[in-house]
Amino acid sequence: VGRPQREGRPRAAIVLVGTELVTGLQSDTNGEEVARALMAAGVRPSVREVLPDDLEVVAERLAELTAAFELVIVTGGLGPTHDDVTRDAAARALGRPLERDAAIAAHLKPVVERHRHPAAAEQVMRQADVLRGARVLQPTTGTAPGQLVPTSGGHLLLLPGPPHELRPMLTTALDLLTAGEGVPPRILGCVDIPESDGQLAAESALAEHPGVGLTVLARPSLITIVLFDEGAGPARLDRAAEDVVSALGDACYADDDSTLAETVIRSAAGRRLTIALAESCTGGMIATELTTVSGASAVFVGSAVTYADSAKVRVLGVAEETLRAHGAVSSQTASEMAHGVRNLTGADIALAVTGIAGPAGGDARKPVGTVWFALDAAEGTSVTHRLFTGNREVVRSRATAVALNLLRHEIDSRAVGDP
Amino acid sequence: VGRPQREGRPRAAIVLVGTELVTGLQSDTNGEEVARALMAAGVRPSVREVLPDDLEVVAERLAELTAAFELVIVTGGLGPTHDDVTRDAAARALGRPLERDAAIAAHLKPVVERHRHPAAAEQVMRQADVLRGARVLQPTTGTAPGQLVPTSGGHLLLLPGPPHELRPMLTTALDLLTAGEGVPPRILGCVDIPESDGQLAAESALAEHPGVGLTVLARPSLITIVLFDEGAGPARLDRAAEDVVSALGDACYADDDSTLAETVIRSAAGRRLTIALAESCTGGMIATELTTVSGASAVFVGSAVTYADSAKVRVLGVAEETLRAHGAVSSQTASEMAHGVRNLTGADIALAVTGIAGPAGGDARKPVGTVWFALDAAEGTSVTHRLFTGNREVVRSRATAVALNLLRHEIDSRAVGDP
Repeated sequence: VGRPQREGRPRAAIVLVGTELVTGLQSDTNGEEVARALMAAGVRPSVREVLPDDLEVVAERLAELTAAFELVIVTGGLGPTHDDVTRDAAARALGRPLERDAAIAAHLKPVVERHRHPAAAEQVMRQADVLRGARVLQPTTGTAPGQLVPTSGGHLLLLPGPPHELRPMLTTALDLLTAGEGVPPRILGCVDIPESDGQLAAESALAEHPGVGLTVLARPSLITIVLFDEGAGPARLDRAAEDVVSALGDACYADDDSTLAETVIRSAAGRRLTIALAESCTGGMIATELTTVSGASAVFVGSAVTYADSAKVRVLGVAEETLRAHGAVSSQTASEMAHGVRNLTGADIALAVTGIAGPAGGDARKPVGTVWFALDAAEGTSVTHRLFTGNREVVRSRATAVALNLLRHEIDSRAVGDP
Repeated sequence: VGRPQREGRPRAAIVLVGTELVTGLQSDTNGEEVARALMAAGVRPSVREVLPDDLEVVAERLAELTAAFELVIVTGGLGPTHDDVTRDAAARALGRPLERDAAIAAHLKPVVERHRHPAAAEQVMRQADVLRGARVLQPTTGTAPGQLVPTSGGHLLLLPGPPHELRPMLTTALDLLTAGEGVPPRILGCVDIPESDGQLAAESALAEHPGVGLTVLARPSLITIVLFDEGAGPARLDRAAEDVVSALGDACYADDDSTLAETVIRSAAGRRLTIALAESCTGGMIATELTTVSGASAVFVGSAVTYADSAKVRVLGVAEETLRAHGAVSSQTASEMAHGVRNLTGADIALAVTGIAGPAGGDARKPVGTVWFALDAAEGTSVTHRLFTGNREVVRSRATAVALNLLRHEIDSRAVGDP
């Protein structure tokens, strides 16, 4: 704790205990969450392992990992059932006995008293057993405490598996361990730019900033650029982030780890603008993204998900003649959808999306991946055509990202305080 | 390969190579996908590890894992850059030299010729290097081949990281390894039943079926029950699955790993019924779920995502008096939304959802988690009230699952061929 990070020596290992994680039947979301929390605290995780609920396997591996790493974080296996082996495995790995914590035992007493069978009651009470010398992390929800245990090389941190129980304890433990000295990475969001272009732009901007590490992550039509402190220090990391943002230009929508939807909602709310959507191929995905943001209701009026052509006609007033002459996936239909939903809802800005997500429905003239976008406002309508690569889900995700980006540009073109 | 599974000895290990996976900046989706493919082939994975792009670390761990496991599957690190260390690490771990594969080299030649620098060309050509004695798995997309390498205890399988390159090679390799002898697990989907009730029902049904393993996985308002062959054999596993389905009754929507949305679309299509939605708190999530299913267009007309009250009035014709007297989250508003969207679209069945997802917007009379559902059809309207626990995303997910389940029941109540 607080020691300088040594080059070439792994610093933190993350272990997830749960047979359902090993078998892939449950997603390993805790691993990602713990890794991100470590990164934010300036600690770089080196390996991540998923182990089954097997006392021998977990004990053996924890002995190896605590000898090799300064910090080993284990999630899961702290509950009351016989499948919950983490406590016993850690005790065996470190050669420390388990002792019943009086405060946790008192906290568990009402739960225990609901059980008739002494064996079941004892099972529940096992959650109060902590390794000798451990710092106990009180549960805010749930029943099992976390445990921060000193090891020969650093610390072993045991956390319960349920995410809402894990989160507050992880924050507490990382505060204790880093004493606020860690430098969190800077996270920049970019949209509608090829991964290789983003990488090159960032690399050339970073040429003048030694001691700053770079990782580029790609999802369909979105990339995230992560800048790490590798000796530069926080002030230099901030300057590097500014230079990378300049190099990326227009493609960079946020430098504070915001999502694109959050950026759109915040920027529209600041201008008191309202937004409506008309979605066909995206089938409600753009609306789902926007309404993930708490507070979206100040901006987002609604979306007409008109999947069938009949709905485009009946709900949005698209002319049957337009559909006959140009098809549902066309500049004309997109424009009429956008215009229709703005009329219907009275929103300031309307965006429509119609396309062919596949796998069926494409032909030589309009291949799978063809998507038309239309933006409609009091000033008029503009259309955008794109041909996306990828399968159904990728095309839908790309169309969602590009649609949000069109909204972002339209909103940002308006003066603040002047809807 | 083909040997009986030995109790107490781990069988398969999955290793994902990539620093971006270790740091949690990229999700480990391959791990889950590979694990599920193994399970489907009747091979039960025992551990899963994520390692950084570090030659020493990967080589050392592969030496340990190939000694301990019958099958070790590695994904990632087979590309052309200096970060791609898997080939060299595997060669070092197994003590087998790398040899250039002539067919892959010929395949790479046009790619190589695009590079001016000899060093860059040689980097690309490294992808043709395979371990001596490896069976080469041809790339169907991408450039790097997969490699199936014999080890002292079984096999090491190297696969490229990109999912679309990995998938066909994994299928080929598992076919080679299991010779079709594996018994895949049976996967049952259940909705709107507490995890503990599902677990108890399955456990009591399985009392008569020794040799069948059970895992229960929970997501908000959905549980998945997985039955493994642990000695029972395929016929007994099928009978066990039938008994568990009977015990679960109405809550079980599928016994073939289908999603709830797939079940709804299939069942409506079989009856030639059309569906429309009116969504408020779910913000397009139900429409997104339904349109994830390819072929949804035969059934799903559209969704009016009326997030603002003004949209409920203007788009769906909800009476302003109803909103004033009962509020947007009420039985009356839900009914008028459902009725409105059925009128608007002409769909056979309309479902409306309105609720308070939180974190803001709740009060003592209508707390966060309050959700009203209304089903409207020619026969009339019925409403359902629920109070869900959980945060914003959990409430929205629960409302989506319950909405799809209401549609399932409504559709299943109709005779096939009689809309």
